Amino acid sequence: MLESLPIDAVDTVAALRRQVQSWRKDGHRIGFVPTMGALHEGHLSLVTRALEDADRVVASIFVNPAQFAQGEDFDTYPRTLESDAAKLAGAGCHLLFAPTVMEMYPNGFASSVHVEGPAFGLESQSRPHFFGGVATVVTKLLNQVQPDLAVFGEKDYQQLLVIRRLARDLDLPVDIVGAETSRDRDGLALSSRNAYLSPAERERAGRLNVILAELAREIRSGQPLEPAQMAARERAEAVFDSVDYIEVRDADTLEPIVAERVSGPARVLAAVRVGKTRLIDNMAV
Amino acid sequence: MLESLPIDAVDTVAALRRQVQSWRKDGHRIGFVPTMGALHEGHLSLVTRALEDADRVVASIFVNPAQFAQGEDFDTYPRTLESDAAKLAGAGCHLLFAPTVMEMYPNGFASSVHVEGPAFGLESQSRPHFFGGVATVVTKLLNQVQPDLAVFGEKDYQQLLVIRRLARDLDLPVDIVGAETSRDRDGLALSSRNAYLSPAERERAGRLNVILAELAREIRSGQPLEPAQMAARERAEAVFDSVDYIEVRDADTLEPIVAERVSGPARVLAAVRVGKTRLIDNMAV
Repeated sequence: MLESLPIDAVDTVAALRRQVQSWRKDGHRIGFVPTMGALHEGHLSLVTRALEDADRVVASIFVNPAQFAQGEDFDTYPRTLESDAAKLAGAGCHLLFAPTVMEMYPNGFASSVHVEGPAFGLESQSRPHFFGGVATVVTKLLNQVQPDLAVFGEKDYQQLLVIRRLARDLDLPVDIVGAETSRDRDGLALSSRNAYLSPAERERAGRLNVILAELAREIRSGQPLEPAQMAARERAEAVFDSVDYIEVRDADTLEPIVAERVSGPARVLAAVRVGKTRLIDNMAV
Repeated sequence: MLESLPIDAVDTVAALRRQVQSWRKDGHRIGFVPTMGALHEGHLSLVTRALEDADRVVASIFVNPAQFAQGEDFDTYPRTLESDAAKLAGAGCHLLFAPTVMEMYPNGFASSVHVEGPAFGLESQSRPHFFGGVATVVTKLLNQVQPDLAVFGEKDYQQLLVIRRLARDLDLPVDIVGAETSRDRDGLALSSRNAYLSPAERERAGRLNVILAELAREIRSGQPLEPAQMAARERAEAVFDSVDYIEVRDADTLEPIVAERVSGPARVLAAVRVGKTRLIDNMAV
């Protein structure tokens, strides 16, 4: 099936490594963009970012069961391999790696990677197993591809910091590059899960980035942290069906900020629900 | 201090990688032998084994706090860097990597590797945090050195299988090689902890391998598993101050064998205490 795709594609680690090693022999620098497919412009901008620093770019598509909890959307997560492959080819990506679940987690698989620090709170509160699943699969993917650099979207900001942390802690020989969030015309952060939204939900979804930008502006202008955060939460609760969090955190460690006002680099982060769809977004202060 | 050692030595990952990368540019194959120092002939045989398959061999010496529990012998573990360096040089090792605790676990360190499967039971029963500490530091060391092969002693058989498992599961691009246990004249497996033994304890310690060999012979000759194991345990209890375990397990998975007699490849493994010293050993059936 992979042969019919409009891009060179492999589904085994062995074939992946053969290709990457042959590029490396030719002196090429390798970039890597891991994805779960259902690609949109945001993903393609990661490929573009990788091409700035690499001669050859590998993208992976793997919907990782280990990072979905029971009752989350693993089964219904959009799977659109053919159109994804076409988009990757169009973006200048050189190789698609699309392994099966058995290739990634063969019988007897027994190892996992855990990260504390930046993984604490926020997403972990709603999705306690999420970062364990992410850390393990990203460690595997980075070791499978062995790229010089790997690009992750700032859209998943906590995930980006978790991956930076694990790459540093486990001495993975790779540069972790964060790429700016791509947004729709109304500022909604692009996400594969936006496909779940009805037209009416889609319209409400566009308010999240506005509320976050407002909060960021208030914090930046020196307003006291706690009341600004509370007010933003109230604004979000008026629009969305529920608010998992809307918080200001240290931009580097994601630790809560205990001061009355923010002085160092900070980030506003939020997760809300519109209907059955969970949306996340974040911005620099 | 490293400059005065009788072998090329580095204590930072950056310096280590510079050396390894320069060897790799010259087309050399890299072997790696991780140790906690207090080197004996057993360790040196791992260097010899690595030299069979590699052009350049790195040995590390790092007494890893993460694999010692409170009350274990981290503080008193023998530290003999100068004589270790001389022994490594004599064995043909090319580079010593001796990082500090801060180089391995800098402030903010927040990641860990966990292995189930072969890590279940046996050593984990007495030392529940041991393999977590081992898995994390070995993942780090393998990523720091990036060797083609790494040699581990069969003396720590369960550890060898745990490391094989994690290298496979996390797709570390390295061959994990097991090397036969080196033994003293009376068959006692060489161990840095043998240095703790008084002369009288040392004599009793030499019985462990005899009891294990006897059990292996009985199992091999088709005797029923359970009674043979029980009898070996009783023989061990008569000699040692306590017996943590003496068991026959599947040689590849370390799963308990449920059949009455052993048919596939199996391993006998034991941990006992002589005075304050804990000894482990194992043998193929």
